[in-house]
Amino acid sequence: MSDPLAISQIPIPTPAAGIFYGVGVGPGDPELLTLKAHRLIAHADVVAFLENADGHSQAADIAAASIQTGAGLRLPIYMPIYMPMNRDRALANAAYDEAAQRISEQLSAGRDVVFLCEGDPLFFGSFAYLMARLADRFHCEVVPGISSINAAAARSKTPLAMLAESFAVLSGRHAPAELLTALERHDTVVILKAGQARPQILAALGEAGRQADARYLEFVGRPNERIVEDVRQLEAGPGPYFSLFLVSRSGARA
Amino acid sequence: MSDPLAISQIPIPTPAAGIFYGVGVGPGDPELLTLKAHRLIAHADVVAFLENADGHSQAADIAAASIQTGAGLRLPIYMPIYMPMNRDRALANAAYDEAAQRISEQLSAGRDVVFLCEGDPLFFGSFAYLMARLADRFHCEVVPGISSINAAAARSKTPLAMLAESFAVLSGRHAPAELLTALERHDTVVILKAGQARPQILAALGEAGRQADARYLEFVGRPNERIVEDVRQLEAGPGPYFSLFLVSRSGARA
Repeated sequence: MSDPLAISQIPIPTPAAGIFYGVGVGPGDPELLTLKAHRLIAHADVVAFLENADGHSQAADIAAASIQTGAGLRLPIYMPIYMPMNRDRALANAAYDEAAQRISEQLSAGRDVVFLCEGDPLFFGSFAYLMARLADRFHCEVVPGISSINAAAARSKTPLAMLAESFAVLSGRHAPAELLTALERHDTVVILKAGQARPQILAALGEAGRQADARYLEFVGRPNERIVEDVRQLEAGPGPYFSLFLVSRSGARA
Repeated sequence: MSDPLAISQIPIPTPAAGIFYGVGVGPGDPELLTLKAHRLIAHADVVAFLENADGHSQAADIAAASIQTGAGLRLPIYMPIYMPMNRDRALANAAYDEAAQRISEQLSAGRDVVFLCEGDPLFFGSFAYLMARLADRFHCEVVPGISSINAAAARSKTPLAMLAESFAVLSGRHAPAELLTALERHDTVVILKAGQARPQILAALGEAGRQADARYLEFVGRPNERIVEDVRQLEAGPGPYFSLFLVSRSGARA
């Protein structure tokens, strides 16, 4: 630790710059914030979050009570960031560039910025794109959050994985052949963002003979949560984006 | 409030059974408990947890501050459960049977039992074995916790998975051929409980050509945490049980 070479390798932060925090707020229940997330949000100089075209932010909704706790101390600056929900990467990249610029202005002014992330910041989230743009100039910290996977297991009381089992996570964006291979190879498979792909996922579950150990959940931990214990009862049409299948051998029903 | 009808609707606290809670306390940092875990632990009638042969419990250590918060109200009953760390399933099953019996006595006496789980209760944990023995007779609730996977990603600032990537979790118990297949098929692979298998895991990383996007972490979030950013610097000998490799294409270094 007293090696001067090692010390010289530590990046020197701009003395007055704020810290960029990626803070997971969990899947929906405000009580599933961690104590650390709650504290950082309550004391944030700037609270940033993605919002949709309607000006709605799920992450800000989940964290509302924690923001209010801090509002008694001082009001944070709110920084809603509009992110087009589009598969055009150029459009998304431009939006991330602009957001990183706005965040960097606040950090340069010495303000800590807390970026609210649904679920966990580094698990299929937007925070990684912002961190990639800011980490070379600013100190970044990540506070993990409860992912929809752990919340889904808890809500349906289904063990995710035990002992020497293996576990894979895919999304509705994967091709049916990839889904099938994963269902055949792994004891537990979680298929996130089932949405439009629901008919193909149901077909893959049937083909792999794994309907009996599959559960379907949408909007986990939110007021409109829906759990379908037997996927053979599930309509084979498209569903909402925030939906998942949890396929677990150790959670198989008799 | 003086409406007699309203009063009659207040549930009568019959000698009803208590609730069995599996509560995740996260990987080590006491601030990574959720607000819900903190509240339930502080108000628990009985706090149960596994301990090793030395009478030590990592889960109880992590939750100590939350237990203390509640101790001002009333002292909970402590229920340490000795679990032999052995691959003999008959021995483990006997220990779970006995633990379930002790817990059921408390539940039958009308006391809520909070079982503390390192990480997440249903992700490679012991809680599932207890829930399987008690769920038919008692109401069980699960409170998800931060898993070591999400904590490792946060500590090393490594994206776990993005967009259409796929993600697999294995453990050091898997055969080298299985590790190799997973490393070849999935963008992100987490290998938990690396422990004794570290030499084989390092060999598989080399064979799959994935040393450059691998990180090694042990005792994540604890005082003795260790992070090795370049696994080529890691000794090829056995390591501690609580260690993992995080192999992420989107976290690849330049």
